Amino acid sequence: MIENIPKKIKHDRRLLARVISQIENDTEEGRNELEKLFSFTGNAHIIGITGPSGAGKSTLVDKLVKELIQNNKENKKKIAVVAVDPTSPFTGGAILGDRIRMQSIALNPNIFVRSMASRGALGGIAHATQAVALTLDAAGFDYIVIETVGAGQSEIEIAGLSHTVIVVKAPGMGDDVQAAKAGILEIADILVVNKADKPGTDAAVMALKLMIEMGYPAQKTNDQTWVPPILQTTALHGEGIDQVAEQVLKHQELSQINGGWQTRSQTQIQYFLKYLLEKEQRKHWHQFQQDKSSRRVFDQVYARSLSPYQAIKQLLKQ
Amino acid sequence: MIENIPKKIKHDRRLLARVISQIENDTEEGRNELEKLFSFTGNAHIIGITGPSGAGKSTLVDKLVKELIQNNKENKKKIAVVAVDPTSPFTGGAILGDRIRMQSIALNPNIFVRSMASRGALGGIAHATQAVALTLDAAGFDYIVIETVGAGQSEIEIAGLSHTVIVVKAPGMGDDVQAAKAGILEIADILVVNKADKPGTDAAVMALKLMIEMGYPAQKTNDQTWVPPILQTTALHGEGIDQVAEQVLKHQELSQINGGWQTRSQTQIQYFLKYLLEKEQRKHWHQFQQDKSSRRVFDQVYARSLSPYQAIKQLLKQ
Repeated sequence: MIENIPKKIKHDRRLLARVISQIENDTEEGRNELEKLFSFTGNAHIIGITGPSGAGKSTLVDKLVKELIQNNKENKKKIAVVAVDPTSPFTGGAILGDRIRMQSIALNPNIFVRSMASRGALGGIAHATQAVALTLDAAGFDYIVIETVGAGQSEIEIAGLSHTVIVVKAPGMGDDVQAAKAGILEIADILVVNKADKPGTDAAVMALKLMIEMGYPAQKTNDQTWVPPILQTTALHGEGIDQVAEQVLKHQELSQINGGWQTRSQTQIQYFLKYLLEKEQRKHWHQFQQDKSSRRVFDQVYARSLSPYQAIKQLLKQ
Repeated sequence: MIENIPKKIKHDRRLLARVISQIENDTEEGRNELEKLFSFTGNAHIIGITGPSGAGKSTLVDKLVKELIQNNKENKKKIAVVAVDPTSPFTGGAILGDRIRMQSIALNPNIFVRSMASRGALGGIAHATQAVALTLDAAGFDYIVIETVGAGQSEIEIAGLSHTVIVVKAPGMGDDVQAAKAGILEIADILVVNKADKPGTDAAVMALKLMIEMGYPAQKTNDQTWVPPILQTTALHGEGIDQVAEQVLKHQELSQINGGWQTRSQTQIQYFLKYLLEKEQRKHWHQFQQDKSSRRVFDQVYARSLSPYQAIKQLLKQ
């Protein structure tokens, strides 16, 4: 058992990486560590970045992180990146060039990069991601960027984990309507059309504008006073990144003033609690199947001397 | 409130249909009715029929039901059909010819046909199907045939609802390997290659035989002493149906002797209980969000004065 973990992980990166692994894997030790760390959380601003693979999310994250660091030279902000995207260079699925590019930020002492192993179950990934984010929060990172590939449910889940959601698209991918249908636009605080040097950029921007005007996002999960800006970037050449950083800071500031930030922090905690509760409850069923007095209840139902509804009442009482 | 429902639904089909609707929709009244009916269940032999759409399941069910009725002239067996397949003629998705054909069995006083509205959630459908089957069981039907289209999970679920599982295939559909991979063969008690007048029948039978010899089914969910027979039918012309009926009766008899029938009955009840439990548990979360003292626990977590793990312990105590 390591003494004074909350303090030590701020300065010892190898320890931080080890603690994250334990917490990510939900070991007994990991739970104990998160238990100790929890009271030091609640300060980081969590940025979720999602979008289809091929939209250039990883490059955008790379440049955005650098921009945020340079923006805050005097403050020395610390930024952590959590990559859940299986095709992301962070997770090792990409070509060498990408890896090297990524190392450029990974070597910066104020930047910490962590990739998440995909676990199959979506709820599980989201929960593990959240546990890792809490650890990084306790370790004193000012910004935590969670990068996740757009794949149905996981895109929507990112909204429950973040304070600012950036949805990235690329022109000519023709997935704008699908995106709207899938509710991806509804969760966006900032919309980015990346690869804006490619043909079809204007059309993509126009389509997003129309959808926003039609009232798609803005009303539901977004803060009332915030209308998602539509930004154009060419992340590969660093173009437009300053605007993305600017809008992130603006959204952060505004939401801290109007209470949106606090509401989202509470939602994040609720997500975390809900998953823990469901996990405990799944254990119940297995316990019931082992437990002698529960099995007596089962037997009564088999024999039709007790109805299923009565049985559930008795099982829940036990 | 209707008095003496268990007795009345045996003779009043309109009442039976109404009670089924209430139970299927899981209304308060439906639950009360199932509560009363439950002690009269546990006698029906439940036959699950699954396979890809286009394999001719509905025609096979139609002919099999007739065969089972004719087989038992002196006993006057009663048979109910529950069609969960959205493409099935029972559920209205088919052409007129199919509808008329189906009416031929629906008009028989010893046959009752019920289609299930698809509900989206698979667990939900399986649970509703089971609730309907329990009702038909209490209403005195000797056989309940559950027809479900092969679509991933639902195929496997049928095993948890049935005493005898028939997997239907058609030649030349080239899905035998997929079927094996998806675990469909593992749940089969009887394998039927329908449309056996079509080319490719021998190849399909051979492929299934090989897979069984390779030990695919037989060992896992099936009763030890039963090796799934591979039957050939041309249901449209009534060919081979007598053998299917014969094997169903044989499997029923054997499994009642070797205890397999009783084990499966218990598994069915366990499925039903598990779903009810999960439903209750989902309610808990909503209650926690409403309840004042739970919200105080949430607030402590938001304020970081209580860890998520401690919070769950406290919530579960309440």
